[in-house]
Amino acid sequence: MSPTSLADRASPTWRVFDRAEFDHRLAAVKYRMAADGIDVMLVSDPANMNYLTGYDGWSFYVPQVVIVALDHDNPVWIGRHMDANGARWTTVLPPDDILGYPDHYVQQRHIHPMTFVAEEITRRGWHKGRLAVEMDAYYFSVQGWESLRAGLPNATFKDAGHLVNWVRAVKSDAEIGLMRRAARILESAMQTACEGVEPGRRQCDTVAEIMSAQVRGTPEFGGDYTAIVPMLPTGICSSTPHLTWTDETFKAGEATILELAAANRRYHCAMARTVYLGKPPALMVDTAEVVCEGLQAALDAARPGATCEEVEHAWREATRRHGLVKESRIGYSIGCAYPPDWGEHTMSLRPGDTTVLQPNMTFHLIPGIWMEDWGIELSETFLVTERGGEPLCGLPRGLYVKQ
Amino acid sequence: MSPTSLADRASPTWRVFDRAEFDHRLAAVKYRMAADGIDVMLVSDPANMNYLTGYDGWSFYVPQVVIVALDHDNPVWIGRHMDANGARWTTVLPPDDILGYPDHYVQQRHIHPMTFVAEEITRRGWHKGRLAVEMDAYYFSVQGWESLRAGLPNATFKDAGHLVNWVRAVKSDAEIGLMRRAARILESAMQTACEGVEPGRRQCDTVAEIMSAQVRGTPEFGGDYTAIVPMLPTGICSSTPHLTWTDETFKAGEATILELAAANRRYHCAMARTVYLGKPPALMVDTAEVVCEGLQAALDAARPGATCEEVEHAWREATRRHGLVKESRIGYSIGCAYPPDWGEHTMSLRPGDTTVLQPNMTFHLIPGIWMEDWGIELSETFLVTERGGEPLCGLPRGLYVKQ
Repeated sequence: MSPTSLADRASPTWRVFDRAEFDHRLAAVKYRMAADGIDVMLVSDPANMNYLTGYDGWSFYVPQVVIVALDHDNPVWIGRHMDANGARWTTVLPPDDILGYPDHYVQQRHIHPMTFVAEEITRRGWHKGRLAVEMDAYYFSVQGWESLRAGLPNATFKDAGHLVNWVRAVKSDAEIGLMRRAARILESAMQTACEGVEPGRRQCDTVAEIMSAQVRGTPEFGGDYTAIVPMLPTGICSSTPHLTWTDETFKAGEATILELAAANRRYHCAMARTVYLGKPPALMVDTAEVVCEGLQAALDAARPGATCEEVEHAWREATRRHGLVKESRIGYSIGCAYPPDWGEHTMSLRPGDTTVLQPNMTFHLIPGIWMEDWGIELSETFLVTERGGEPLCGLPRGLYVKQ
Repeated sequence: MSPTSLADRASPTWRVFDRAEFDHRLAAVKYRMAADGIDVMLVSDPANMNYLTGYDGWSFYVPQVVIVALDHDNPVWIGRHMDANGARWTTVLPPDDILGYPDHYVQQRHIHPMTFVAEEITRRGWHKGRLAVEMDAYYFSVQGWESLRAGLPNATFKDAGHLVNWVRAVKSDAEIGLMRRAARILESAMQTACEGVEPGRRQCDTVAEIMSAQVRGTPEFGGDYTAIVPMLPTGICSSTPHLTWTDETFKAGEATILELAAANRRYHCAMARTVYLGKPPALMVDTAEVVCEGLQAALDAARPGATCEEVEHAWREATRRHGLVKESRIGYSIGCAYPPDWGEHTMSLRPGDTTVLQPNMTFHLIPGIWMEDWGIELSETFLVTERGGEPLCGLPRGLYVKQ
């Protein structure tokens, strides 16, 4: 069986976007590279690697890169040898542009896979060029960076920053389609979650049902793993957002924050809701109402042409009159993602972010409130449209009270 | 309510180990720091942060550190302001040693949280010392490194390497207890997985059941999230280990590799099995038998005093006589872990690793075989004992054939 026929067999399963979409993405990235004076860019962020090639595997725990060079048609995938078949089955790349490094490079003290990457860059004649790396990307380590520089003494380096992330900020209709699928799954998972928070029930038993709903999806399409697992701080722990779960039980007279996502083919939709078991304190009820009002004000403001900080300002004005003050950002760009974050690290809804909203940008609007010993989260993932931010999910938005 | 009483309320839920165990860990780490000429060490690996303080939250998507200084009793936790309460509820640290940086440091172009960390180091008078950072840890970025150095011009820096990981290599009885719990959960999850692989069934539906079993745990203890999601390459994709799932169906006449873990309070046990739907090819049946023979030979060799490479050699000798050759490592140290990896990045079972095995070390022994268009994985997590490697799980080891 030839490699070509093997690839043809695998393609219906893993290849999500057509060739034209990948060509469009690569052209947009190369355009920005040329503008920034970059000849060759090393992409380490797994979401960026997926965006440019379709590569999808849980192999980012070892160093790997996609290299984009202005003078080469395809991105070049370099990863661990055992993952090279994964690149064959999930990407649109020809065999010459998929390279696996030998296993003795993995997790050693004296040798690093980025040395192999430097040698391949040299072999292709790119070693004297203007190279860029993603200096704040997950999974590109300091040791990797030093090994790369040592292997490429004649190159000029600069920080690529979040160049690919910025290209990803405006979604294609195909991407929006996947996020709408994720939203359908998320509605189901969040309903499961709200029903599952019951006095005396173990947190882990409820999370088991949530994760099952996230992955089962709908009869039409399944769910993917999410870039962050369900977070559900409960009781006093609701004063902080990022705690997960234990096998303790939910208790009457306590709030539980549920921050969940769902994903379809790596594209995420996220949402937070807060459940209260019993009669909630008046302050919590009032705060939930103010948050809902501020959230709607932000959605209304999220039109093309508005800036990120203007959206935050709409929230701030609507909530300030009720005495609610929040220091942290109220949202961020969301889309294709791998652990540990479903945010895209580009736009934030906060003062000072003057990025102008465009149609088909997508945000997770999450104005979480965390006090000394309690908290509340209500959030929506929205699409920027001419009519304002369109929430992708359709669940009721208030505090979920179970008497 | 005073912070002390709040902390007392939360402690039964999140605090897994007693104070004496944390004291022992910290002393062991400080001993190695002194031997390596390190005054102050910045720990970024979430598993290392947990090991030294108990901190447990999905906040590692933003920069955070635990600082260990020879001249200071406690580790110092620094993270995002909204996560500081998480440190209060999950760690044994006093309030003075928990610091949150303001939200405007998060995901900006012109400022980085490591600048805040550098300022705190200066405030504590550690800025002229011999500092060490984990240069190959996940979640410590190149930009973070450069911000830290810029903020500490009078410090001397070196690579801490995997200093804390090496201290973690030998587990306490309490840690082994958590891994045995994980093993009980994993047996249940793997049985669910093997039963769930059926012709015509969607992969996502089977994974939904697996993840539910992983998190539900047993009636006595619940499951935690695993550092890697279930991996189940199927059909031609079984030629590579790290693919996850789609909503395609399992097919008769195809193999599916199931590589799963379970976790209890961040402590992992991992296992791989291979299911074949129908009558498997003779080559696959024979290979499975050879793998089982080699795996047992490696287990028998895994006694205190043996080296990692001797364990691998036992596998190599047992399988070579059947013509099976494998280039990649056959196992690695496993334990407390966060995404993206349940391996500890210290010992590998491969030629050249001369680390001597000690009682209460734990390994995932996974001699995966990946060919051009098929593969097979059978693995065990084992504990080093005087009688050899003791598998923590008790499931049958051969190819799982469903006719």
